[in-house]
Amino acid sequence: MTPEAFRVAGRATVDWIADFLADIGDRPIVPPVAPGDVRASLPASPPLEGEPYTALLDDVDRLIAPAITQWQHPGFYGFFPANSSPPAVLGELLSAGLGANGMLWSTSPACTELETHVLDWLAEACGLPDRFRSDGPGGGVIQDTASSASLCAVVAARDRSGGAAVLPDLRVYTSAQAHSSIEKDVLVAGFARDQLRAVPVDDTYAMDAEALAALVATDVADGLVPCLVVATVGTTSSGAVDPVPRIAEVAAEVGAWVHVDAAWAGSATVCPEHRHLLDGLDRVDSYLFNPHKWLLTNFDCSAFYVADAAPLVSALSIVPEYLRNEASESGQVIDYRDWQIPLGRRFRALKLWFVMRSYGVEGLRAHIRAHVAAAGMLADRVAAHPGLVHAAPPSLGLVCFRHVDGDEASKRLLEAMNATGEAFLTHTLLSDRYVLRVAVGGTWTTAAHVERLADLLDELA
Amino acid sequence: MTPEAFRVAGRATVDWIADFLADIGDRPIVPPVAPGDVRASLPASPPLEGEPYTALLDDVDRLIAPAITQWQHPGFYGFFPANSSPPAVLGELLSAGLGANGMLWSTSPACTELETHVLDWLAEACGLPDRFRSDGPGGGVIQDTASSASLCAVVAARDRSGGAAVLPDLRVYTSAQAHSSIEKDVLVAGFARDQLRAVPVDDTYAMDAEALAALVATDVADGLVPCLVVATVGTTSSGAVDPVPRIAEVAAEVGAWVHVDAAWAGSATVCPEHRHLLDGLDRVDSYLFNPHKWLLTNFDCSAFYVADAAPLVSALSIVPEYLRNEASESGQVIDYRDWQIPLGRRFRALKLWFVMRSYGVEGLRAHIRAHVAAAGMLADRVAAHPGLVHAAPPSLGLVCFRHVDGDEASKRLLEAMNATGEAFLTHTLLSDRYVLRVAVGGTWTTAAHVERLADLLDELA
Repeated sequence: MTPEAFRVAGRATVDWIADFLADIGDRPIVPPVAPGDVRASLPASPPLEGEPYTALLDDVDRLIAPAITQWQHPGFYGFFPANSSPPAVLGELLSAGLGANGMLWSTSPACTELETHVLDWLAEACGLPDRFRSDGPGGGVIQDTASSASLCAVVAARDRSGGAAVLPDLRVYTSAQAHSSIEKDVLVAGFARDQLRAVPVDDTYAMDAEALAALVATDVADGLVPCLVVATVGTTSSGAVDPVPRIAEVAAEVGAWVHVDAAWAGSATVCPEHRHLLDGLDRVDSYLFNPHKWLLTNFDCSAFYVADAAPLVSALSIVPEYLRNEASESGQVIDYRDWQIPLGRRFRALKLWFVMRSYGVEGLRAHIRAHVAAAGMLADRVAAHPGLVHAAPPSLGLVCFRHVDGDEASKRLLEAMNATGEAFLTHTLLSDRYVLRVAVGGTWTTAAHVERLADLLDELA
Repeated sequence: MTPEAFRVAGRATVDWIADFLADIGDRPIVPPVAPGDVRASLPASPPLEGEPYTALLDDVDRLIAPAITQWQHPGFYGFFPANSSPPAVLGELLSAGLGANGMLWSTSPACTELETHVLDWLAEACGLPDRFRSDGPGGGVIQDTASSASLCAVVAARDRSGGAAVLPDLRVYTSAQAHSSIEKDVLVAGFARDQLRAVPVDDTYAMDAEALAALVATDVADGLVPCLVVATVGTTSSGAVDPVPRIAEVAAEVGAWVHVDAAWAGSATVCPEHRHLLDGLDRVDSYLFNPHKWLLTNFDCSAFYVADAAPLVSALSIVPEYLRNEASESGQVIDYRDWQIPLGRRFRALKLWFVMRSYGVEGLRAHIRAHVAAAGMLADRVAAHPGLVHAAPPSLGLVCFRHVDGDEASKRLLEAMNATGEAFLTHTLLSDRYVLRVAVGGTWTTAAHVERLADLLDELA
């Protein structure tokens, strides 16, 4: 495909996406497909000769778009949102069009420097402590997911505490409500399952910091080495916020790394009224949140901050001859390959830059505030409904509730809600009870959509 | 930005990329920027109010595009190529526009099924053994990089051999010419550095399989457990091909996992005449190559195949309640989150599907053949030049050579070549000598460009 053919095909693709976004609310959120349906519609073998682009775009329209779950539908309240937005889509397009690889500063200076710069912007917009800005020993980096970024924290903490030589003695702590990625990361990093301590939670599902202190004390008495505590700000099941200040105190006493996973809730800190979520962050080692969840930036964009990059780079830097270069050796540049697991890297800063500039900080605040207000309204409607009861305190855009008649009734309600095609909720377990979750946060989700959701609940509960 | 505003901004962006691609050969490959230049051109703080899209695109044109290293320039011969192509860019655009997350089959059926299907297509196009197709216990998955995919192989092999409980006894083997990502992956997975055995290479820089056999025998005699051998098909420094059939034999005797890293060379197997690269693959556990290197597919697209997904899923699957769903529990679907480290995933199959359909298998073959032929011509010119000598046997699109006057002369030659602005080469060390590498493989690189490169070498060597 020549550049001129690209121009024609590209415009057609842009038009198709514009139409798709314009009527996304009319598509079923959950596609009516059974396992194998999509594959059955595709030829068994690849074509020997090339096909015209119109055939490809037509197949996306006919076979693919109707068979995806519509995460961008305004009635999508499942999991946590995966925000996409038009300027982020265009940032992603430009990243692909430029085709640069930012593994080293020298392999694309703008790719590295824009990333450093935009993560400083983001730190400022969110009121993060100065320790996470790039003008000291720390700074930020964009990773694909919170899972991958947390794995880097696990590995850095593990190696700062002595690494493989003492691995069997090391212990990691997180709450029973932490995201499953933490357990996965700990296992990937070579720990045995029982080296991860599940700290009990209080009745708001936040980590019980005194229980943490007791576990740590017992382990230390047993000659073990606490190397990492992972705190969650905004748990997946209920949006609970762990007491980071006290956790940091407990960890400091034994020299353990503190990593804070605010994957979803962190976006809310663009609003000054939500900055209490950052309490204690001036004493932790690493912090992450995902602009791809609730800050209008296409997946993948997880912002990972460290107070001191040295242990991270020490754990992750391997420099073969074929990657040596003058700029790296000058010590004046960041090579982000040393801040992550993969070597190669896309130019992801472009989309975050586009989002921050297109919406402006005030625009991002308005986005969060509209959803928090809508979720508050929904929480009131749930509280007022005789058949429903809150399963946890509402948190930002997340409302968790169950049916008073028990798990079966809750499950039936979820199924009935999803069967309307107008809304999509997912579930969790809290205190062993089946709970419906509504995560308000879609790019196109307005107060009117959430009112409609509340009306549906009234009808079906 | 509304869908209609996106239509306007998107067309402008497509036009900008078409123009960028049309004149990419006129840009300097290495941008004339010093550390800090890009950041100095950017405002210190993010804007409070949103800016018009035209300002963003203008800044990409003015500040960003001139400050990236031009990986898509036809004179880029550094590292290995990172192929981008117009249809892949449009596949990436559609993936961003659809905004779906394929962590589970149920969170976007088409995202999962197209991936499985296209990886079967790719296996067929490349003549991979049937064991890597999805109709048996194995199959393929797209990961971001070879580093991440190899990490999955390391973790699966580690856990299949007993995991954390026996970790100190486990040993991993790879050649001294293996990519640095293998060492990084092994360390990330919790091994100590000396648990990775560097197997000596022969005089073509391929692994000495008898040396491997001896190392394995010694370790077994010492009560240690060989858990993984990583073979390389197409090493980074010289394109050497490890003897996979014999390596697989040695590994089979002790039940070790065999992982084959063909990150760069694997693309060449779309051509039947290069299928010898697959010798022995019918006896290995996992295999990867990167269509994003030499198969016209934008980074990131690493194709990772396993003969049996069970150990991989066993090592990587953690299922919290909030991710449980009927489709997963039916056992009829693949949830690719269990085949990778991250949870979330982009719809990367789209771009690979677009590439295979746009070019057709014959088009992909023509792409590879043109580069291999051009590299062959270059190899002849190097052999004929009195000041140059081959540093390793030419391999596919890779030609490695040095100056007969020694390392300083080789280094000066590389600098002089890069200073022309017409070509960009990188270096490596082979047998402790400084070596220039020319990796022919850019999307826009033709025989004429390589002829010009050879002329420049004549002039400057």
